[in-house]
Formats: sequence, structure tokens, C-alpha cells
Amino acid sequence: RSLRVAVIPGDGIGQEVMPEGLACLRAAAERYNIDLELDEQFKDWATCERYLETGSMLPEGWKEKLSTYDAIYFGAVGMPEKVPDHISLWGSLIQFRREFDQYISLRPCKLMPGIPCPLSNKKIGDIDFWVVRENTEGEYSSIGGKMFPNTSREFVVQDTIMTRTGVDRVLKYAFELSNSRPKKHLTSATKSNGISISMPYWDERVLEMSKSYQDVKVDKYHIDILTAWFVLRPELFDVVVGSNLFGDILSDLGPACTGSIGIAPSGNINPEGDWPSLFEPVHGSAPDIAGKGIANPVGMIWAGQMMLEHFGFKDAADTMMRSIEIALESGGENIRTPDIGGKGTCQSLGSHIASLISKI
Amino acid sequence: RSLRVAVIPGDGIGQEVMPEGLACLRAAAERYNIDLELDEQFKDWATCERYLETGSMLPEGWKEKLSTYDAIYFGAVGMPEKVPDHISLWGSLIQFRREFDQYISLRPCKLMPGIPCPLSNKKIGDIDFWVVRENTEGEYSSIGGKMFPNTSREFVVQDTIMTRTGVDRVLKYAFELSNSRPKKHLTSATKSNGISISMPYWDERVLEMSKSYQDVKVDKYHIDILTAWFVLRPELFDVVVGSNLFGDILSDLGPACTGSIGIAPSGNINPEGDWPSLFEPVHGSAPDIAGKGIANPVGMIWAGQMMLEHFGFKDAADTMMRSIEIALESGGENIRTPDIGGKGTCQSLGSHIASLISKI
Ligand SMILES: CC(C)[C@H](C(=O)O)[C@@H](O)C(=O)O
Ligand SMILES: CC(C)[C@H](C(=O)O)[C@@H](O)C(=O)O
Repeated sequence: RSLRVAVIPGDGIGQEVMPEGLACLRAAAERYNIDLELDEQFKDWATCERYLETGSMLPEGWKEKLSTYDAIYFGAVGMPEKVPDHISLWGSLIQFRREFDQYISLRPCKLMPGIPCPLSNKKIGDIDFWVVRENTEGEYSSIGGKMFPNTSREFVVQDTIMTRTGVDRVLKYAFELSNSRPKKHLTSATKSNGISISMPYWDERVLEMSKSYQDVKVDKYHIDILTAWFVLRPELFDVVVGSNLFGDILSDLGPACTGSIGIAPSGNINPEGDWPSLFEPVHGSAPDIAGKGIANPVGMIWAGQMMLEHFGFKDAADTMMRSIEIALESGGENIRTPDIGGKGTCQSLGSHIASLISKI
Repeated sequence: RSLRVAVIPGDGIGQEVMPEGLACLRAAAERYNIDLELDEQFKDWATCERYLETGSMLPEGWKEKLSTYDAIYFGAVGMPEKVPDHISLWGSLIQFRREFDQYISLRPCKLMPGIPCPLSNKKIGDIDFWVVRENTEGEYSSIGGKMFPNTSREFVVQDTIMTRTGVDRVLKYAFELSNSRPKKHLTSATKSNGISISMPYWDERVLEMSKSYQDVKVDKYHIDILTAWFVLRPELFDVVVGSNLFGDILSDLGPACTGSIGIAPSGNINPEGDWPSLFEPVHGSAPDIAGKGIANPVGMIWAGQMMLEHFGFKDAADTMMRSIEIALESGGENIRTPDIGGKGTCQSLGSHIASLISKI
């Protein structure tokens, strides 16, 4: 089987971690005979340089062009000193999510070997769950406005929109994912005790959908106490599903609780494959360390691993995952990057993982 | 000076921790000659028993009656097996917040001696900040509705409303609080990179208000990464201000990060004193342990401490705080309640603290 991937490194450390991600993907493709096309013609797309030169993050016709790929392998975007984030992000990443209907955002929260956990007394295996986030509607709407501007009576209204289509499809994905895991346990993030229209509707749809998944154990927590449980008892969770905003919060908090926020990946998925899905590291462009060659490439590599897994290349994905784990656990001081206590470089860690992928 | 307080223990362990809170307040009042009235005629108000008998949580005329007090000292409400939370809470606590315009919710996030911290490597003094939450508007509005019900085109709209009055007054409170503290550091919770109308408005008002507080160092974080920093570097914070929803989340997450969610207090404050303010423990009615006499009374006592502090009884409040700390640090096995590793009871811990208040 084949996989066609558009490679967009973007800004800052995106350009540095991308070659390591590509090297690992190539090693996996070679070993498992995957017909993998990694198209690198998009080096200057979704960069702030381009925005500064041309006034837009992407060239005309970007949508048609990218539509022909199965996936986008994305680095990072942003140069906040020169271009405000709402321009660079909304002009690239957020636009991809919407226009390619990547209605699932998927992020692992997993304790990794060799990565210190900020929570006390947790060991490998204790924390290993997924956050599934609705990625297109909900609290992120542009409907609303301001009344009585510049007076003391001024107020703004911002609409949250939840559609049956939008809610049901993310719930379905989350139920399917839960059903495929040994624990079959789904946690829904809500706030129906305070937010009285949208969140009760969310709960109602969860209840309805649960009827089609009798084997999945479902529970719900209000978002306030749910964030507390992420810290106090993260071992409670298997799959957690939330609205656009709640999912956004939980998918930063989850990786923070495992200490892996600097190395975690993220999938922006169109499950039907009608449009390309996008895989990226959670970390941003990190202007402060860009150009120094010390960025940790694991987020980029792990994003590649998620991409192979999503498209069904299970053996290759498993080998990539094990290689990442071995490197984090036993990679020596000269291999590890400074953020995880070493003196190595982006390249030393990246090529170590690539060589593990070829040989373990 | 005098203070008139309406005492409402409510449901479950509210009835058990209240006597300990009252004993400690009486000890403080006696020692510091405070003319403190603790009116206990409200024993059956805001109880689910009352709701089951009469169909409402509060008697008629409750508002006029409670309006004559400076403060409400509140236990906990809820018997979810018999009365749904949205009835018991919206019929009591949430109604008080709205009708008494308690537009500030204030909660301490503080590492306490003798309470294990779920974060690794934190010591006393590392975490000591306040969360200030807007408590009347924002995401908790009842405006919105459903379109195309029971069809596949069904959707709901829920409005978030932020008024200049509502936003400015909570910001003013937060700036004043920051200004009164040594670090003079205020952190604003936002999400203006994703939620495009209400949150940029919030940011705009923060910027405007900051002009009147030149000494206060202000920064802002998006809510997703802010929750991550609560776990990774809670020592960054001094005062954190957020909208109704963001404040709700942060004021559960903060106490969770210090391990004190079971003993933390909460103030629902009308700063002008036009209406009574309400002080309560963060924990709920805990039906599972109610009636066993083992509830931890510290949240209730600490809420009383916050009440005295709010009304300017500084010496008494300081002594209460030190007494709580001493009890948590050195109270023996027979004094501590089971939740903090002892074999004691609600009463053993409560009366130990009361006696410390009288004598330290
Ligand atoms: C019970 C619920 C409506 C309430 C809130 O969200 O305000 C609670 O979580 C709180 O923080 O007091
Ligand atoms: C940059 C921002 C708009 C974005 C979001 O909130 O979706 C980010 O936080 C993310 O999670 O990818």
C-alpha cells in the first residue's frame, strides 16, 4: 500500500526537526516496504517569511494542490515578533483544520521512559490515554459581536455552536477508539451544571450514542473537576472526549501531566479520508531556540508514527514507537537533547532513533 | 467592630463540619473581642430535605431575610441520589451568587504543611497564589436555544456574554489584590487565539485596566497552556484572573495541584458590601462519608478564616491561619482525619484547631 505525504516544515524549529522526522519515516518505509512519497516541495509554505513577502501564508491554489495528498506532515508555525499568531496560525494550521474538515484532533497522554513526570509517584504504564477533541465548531465560532461600543454599556456576545452532525461524528470516533482498546472506557468532558444549553446537549448526544456501544463504559466529569483528576488520578482515563475548547485544554494539560508536552504529537484527522489529515508535534516554532540545532525532534518523529498508525501501517508504527522509547530510555548524554538532560543535538537524537528503526 | 453572619450548614457533611467552623470562629472572636453574631436559625435552609418536603430549597422571603446579614457562612449542598444537582445548586448556591451580586469568586491555591503535594519536588512556599473568578456572567448565561430539534440538522447556540461592567469590576478587584501583595504580579487567563470575539474583548479590558496599575506586572496565557503551567511551574503565579468558566476550571485545578482540594475554601464576594458575601469550603456534601463523623473540617474553618480576613479582622484571621497550619503540620494520628492519614474525627481535628486559636 502507498501513502502520499505533503511535507510542510514551517517556521523556526519546524525546519530543524522536520529532517529528523523524514529520516525516521524513510527508515520505517524501507524496512516495511511502504510505498511512501514524502513530497518536499512545500518548504516555504506556511512560513512567516512568505507572509512578510507576499501578504499571505499560503500561495493561491493551495487547497487544490494539497487535496491530492493523503496527509500533511507539518512542523510548526509562528514568528510572533514579526507576525501576530492569529495571522500565522489562522492563515495556515487553523485553515487546514477547517477547510480539510479535520474534525478530530487526537493526542496521546502517555508517560514515556526517560522523561521525568511532574506528578509524584507515577510510573510507566500508569498514564496512557488519548484525548479526542472536536476540532471544527463549538466554542470556536466567529459568530457574535459588540453592542454599545465605547460606552459604559458596552458588551460582547460570542456564540458557541454545537450541531448534531458535529457532535455525533466526534463522539462516534471516540466511541470507536474506546471500543478498540482493552479497557473500553470513555470519559466525556462536560459542564452541564453551569453552562445550561450547549453542555446538556452534549451530554444528551453522549447518552444517545452510548446506546450503540453497549460494551463501552462511559462516564462524565465536569471540566473543572476533570482537570483536577488529570493531576490527582490520571490512571483513571483511557479515552477522553471533549468539545473544541475543553479538548484544547485537556490536550495540553494531559501531556503536561506526563512531562511530555515538549515531545507529544497531535493528529488533525478527517477520518473518512475525503481530505488530507495533518500530523504535527504539539510544540510550536520555539523562536528562542531556533537555529541552535538543539530542538528535540521526538514530537516530530512521534507525529510521523501517529501518521503511519492512522493509515494502518501497524508494524512500522509499532517499531517507530519502540525506537522512540528505547532512545528516550537509554540514549546517552551525547545523544539526548538539552531539554531532556543531555548535551546532544536535534540531529544526534534524530539519527539515533532512525537507526533504531532500521535495526531493532 | 461587629459582624453579623447567617449560618447555613446545608446537606451531608455540611452539617458535620459546620459546628467545627463555628467553634473556631467563636474562639477567634473571643480572643480578639470581635462582636460576632453567628445566627444558626437557618439549619434547614438550602437542604435537599426541604426541597423534597416543600418543592423548593429556600423558604419564601429568603432574600429579604438574608439581606440583613454581612455574610453567609455556608456548608455544602447536594443529595444527588434524591435531588439532581442542577436543582439543589441552582436553587441555593448559584442563586445566592446571582441575586446577591457576588461577582467575585476568590480561592487560595496554597501548599499546606502536612498535606502531600501531588506534584513532585514542591515545598512549602513554592505554591501560594489566588484565583479570582468572574462569578456572574460570561460563559454561564442562559441565552441561546435549539434549532431544528429532533432532526439531523439540529443544532444549539449558547451565548457567552461579557459586559464592560462585569469584566472591569472583576479585573479591578484582581488588580487591587495584586497591588496589595509583595510580588504585584497578575496573570490573565485568555483564549484570544481561538475564541475570537469574547476573549479579545477580555484582553482589551485587561490592557486598559493595566494603565491604572503601573506597578502591577501583568501577563496573559491562553487557558490551554496555562493549565499546563499550573502543573509544571505553579511558582510562577501570584494572582490569576479568569472569566466565569476559566476561573471555575483554574480554581479546581489550582487546589488540586497543591493537594488541598479537600480542604480549600472559597469566597463568593460582593466587594461593595451592598449584599452579603458567602464563604464556603470547596468540597461538596460528600454523601458517601456523611454521617460517619470523619469529614475533614479544615475547608469549613479556612472559609471562616477568609471571612474574617475579608471583613478586616486581620489579627484574628492570621491566628486562625496559623492554627490551621500548626494542626496540619503537627496534629497527631488521633487528631488527623482519615483523608489526611489519621484515625481522628471531624471533631478531634476541629476542636484541636479551636484550642490552638485560643492559645497560640
Ligand atoms: C456547581 C457548579 C455550577 C459550580 C460552578 O461551576 O460555578 C461549582 O463548580 C463551583 O465552582 O462552585
Ligand atoms: C493556536 C490555537 C488556536 C490552537 C487551538 O486552540 O486550537 C492551539 O492551542 C492548538 O491546540 O492547536
